[in-house]
Amino acid sequence: MRQVAILGIGQTSIDEHWDKSLRELGGEATFLALQDAGVEKVDALYVGNMLSPLVSGQNQLGTFFADWSGLWHQEAVKIEAACASGAAVFRAGLMAVASGELDSALVLGVEKMTDKAGHDVTAALATAADADYEVEQGVSFVGLNALIMRRYMHEYGWQHADFAPFSINAHANAMSNPYARLHDRITGDQFEKSAMVATPINLLDASPTGDGAAAAVIVPAEKVTGLPNRPRVLVTGSASATDTIAVHSRSDPLFLSAAFTSASKAYSMAGVGPEDIDFFELHDAFSIMSALSLEACGFAERGKGVRLGLDKEITPNGKIPICTRGGLKARGHPVGATGMYQIVEVVQQLRLECGETQVKDARIGMAQNIGGSGATILTHILQVD
Amino acid sequence: MRQVAILGIGQTSIDEHWDKSLRELGGEATFLALQDAGVEKVDALYVGNMLSPLVSGQNQLGTFFADWSGLWHQEAVKIEAACASGAAVFRAGLMAVASGELDSALVLGVEKMTDKAGHDVTAALATAADADYEVEQGVSFVGLNALIMRRYMHEYGWQHADFAPFSINAHANAMSNPYARLHDRITGDQFEKSAMVATPINLLDASPTGDGAAAAVIVPAEKVTGLPNRPRVLVTGSASATDTIAVHSRSDPLFLSAAFTSASKAYSMAGVGPEDIDFFELHDAFSIMSALSLEACGFAERGKGVRLGLDKEITPNGKIPICTRGGLKARGHPVGATGMYQIVEVVQQLRLECGETQVKDARIGMAQNIGGSGATILTHILQVD
Repeated sequence: MRQVAILGIGQTSIDEHWDKSLRELGGEATFLALQDAGVEKVDALYVGNMLSPLVSGQNQLGTFFADWSGLWHQEAVKIEAACASGAAVFRAGLMAVASGELDSALVLGVEKMTDKAGHDVTAALATAADADYEVEQGVSFVGLNALIMRRYMHEYGWQHADFAPFSINAHANAMSNPYARLHDRITGDQFEKSAMVATPINLLDASPTGDGAAAAVIVPAEKVTGLPNRPRVLVTGSASATDTIAVHSRSDPLFLSAAFTSASKAYSMAGVGPEDIDFFELHDAFSIMSALSLEACGFAERGKGVRLGLDKEITPNGKIPICTRGGLKARGHPVGATGMYQIVEVVQQLRLECGETQVKDARIGMAQNIGGSGATILTHILQVD
Repeated sequence: MRQVAILGIGQTSIDEHWDKSLRELGGEATFLALQDAGVEKVDALYVGNMLSPLVSGQNQLGTFFADWSGLWHQEAVKIEAACASGAAVFRAGLMAVASGELDSALVLGVEKMTDKAGHDVTAALATAADADYEVEQGVSFVGLNALIMRRYMHEYGWQHADFAPFSINAHANAMSNPYARLHDRITGDQFEKSAMVATPINLLDASPTGDGAAAAVIVPAEKVTGLPNRPRVLVTGSASATDTIAVHSRSDPLFLSAAFTSASKAYSMAGVGPEDIDFFELHDAFSIMSALSLEACGFAERGKGVRLGLDKEITPNGKIPICTRGGLKARGHPVGATGMYQIVEVVQQLRLECGETQVKDARIGMAQNIGGSGATILTHILQVD
């Protein structure tokens, strides 16, 4: 495989975009990424999306966006891996360029979630779980995560308040991110008093969904020379792994085995270890997932992920900064687009464009995107030359 | 890119499989392909599917089938490109193996269509068209194809009966294919008297949908040596191209530009031309599509595709045999799986396993899969060493 670089990035704000359709949302991120890359055309368009058949009545999103974005006649395809669709489409585009088959690709994650009523969207999100053996029992995604969080608290003796630093950090970091869904700092007291959703998960443990799109232009690294005022961002690690689709099938539901496997492969491919990672954009759909990701990727021992938050090691100045642009919790979670937001944010950090939440001397960043309750997990490592 | 070979194939019959769920259907084709390849494990599972979120309430099919098939922890992802999902997933798996990132992949096309009422499935199929500008007007897929067929007849002066050879050939060829949906010969008289669906398309112009799954194991060609009694099947051409998603946006709706572009690229990659193709598994969702595909791929001049049928050049002994196992018309069209059925059938021809419809000395076969009304088209060329 040849080395691949990220030439340009683009994103829309995450919000309830009542004035923008699915095609306008994805088109905006596409245009911004092409503009940032300084190119007008690419060999192919890869689109990551989870919900458009159910929410917008639209399939074949690859061609749909190639047509709308003026990338006529070009190859185009859609990738879906539930909430990991964003990272999955990045990896698909990456392999196409790395293989030598394509010389450039536009990779887009897009999700339009607010065109249906809330209960319809909840039902659509449940299609990521096992329809026959989980959803049939009436369990929702927050319900599955609540079972995992309760078990974690029981096994390791943590209290609900111990998870507060994850949400406080995410909200604080989103303050300076203009694309973030939420712009309000929260306190530990607010975290504890927030409305209950599914015990022990309350509103401030859970990420908000929303409409959004994020995109990147990827090209062979050797084609990127002499960028003005901008480092060359290389993709040095990429891996995908799976676990059982149903949580009840796992022998150890507190271990994200697909996070461990994909991170191990990505570390090995990049020739680095957890100690080399300057910051980590992880998948904090619920606060419990932050703890489990940190543990599975080697930043904390089993049952001790929460400790990193309490010790302030996850803030932009800490040992392993996470969710530096707000994470899913405050930047927002437009499900099929989230993985591409993470990639875009890692690039922003490596370009040193993150202002108040800039990680000092950031050179190696990691992104991890989760589909289902840990069923599909992709890990990417990006670094500057 | 390194050269890729097809090591094993598997398929289920296409039918109304009331006794098989989505997972059982896909699992069956997966097991058969692994068995045929003589391997127990692969590096990744690529799944092509169009309708499962809408018909089965199930997303994340990559992980869903990796779990069910015992391919635990392996990479898995779903690809969707409407009715071209089958070929799109084959190409995605192909690039992953060709890139060197993976040493093997199981590529599966699967569709479970009969778990919903007919009008729900018709609505689900319409998600391949433009939701905002086509479906909103009440047009269905057969309606779009009827408009194209009527225009073709008007422009070139053909009568409806002139299309009969396409359907007669497909039905005749399916007689010896045990996996085919339909096993009944038809006559020109039956073709003309069949019930009207959308003028001028009648029931015998249109392909039947159904439940089905087809799969292949792909590996680097250099790993395939010394196969007993079986030639090595190489993938020598692969390309994907798009057109506008809405038919009304095309300056020339009678020219499948994406078929022309993808076929031209595939020919160039394989170093062959139409004159070298021994047989062609094309996408005869409606009889008009057979004519348009033959023309766009260089087998007939514009407006003269129908002539190949009338001259008996499309039968297994003709100049360019098509739909040798029944095509979409009689083998059946389980939408997101169809492209993989075509690949499996090309392999069967190249292995000389097709009995009564075996193309003599078949060495180079082509498959073409269409999503939407010509919006996404992939062309693959396979050949024996």
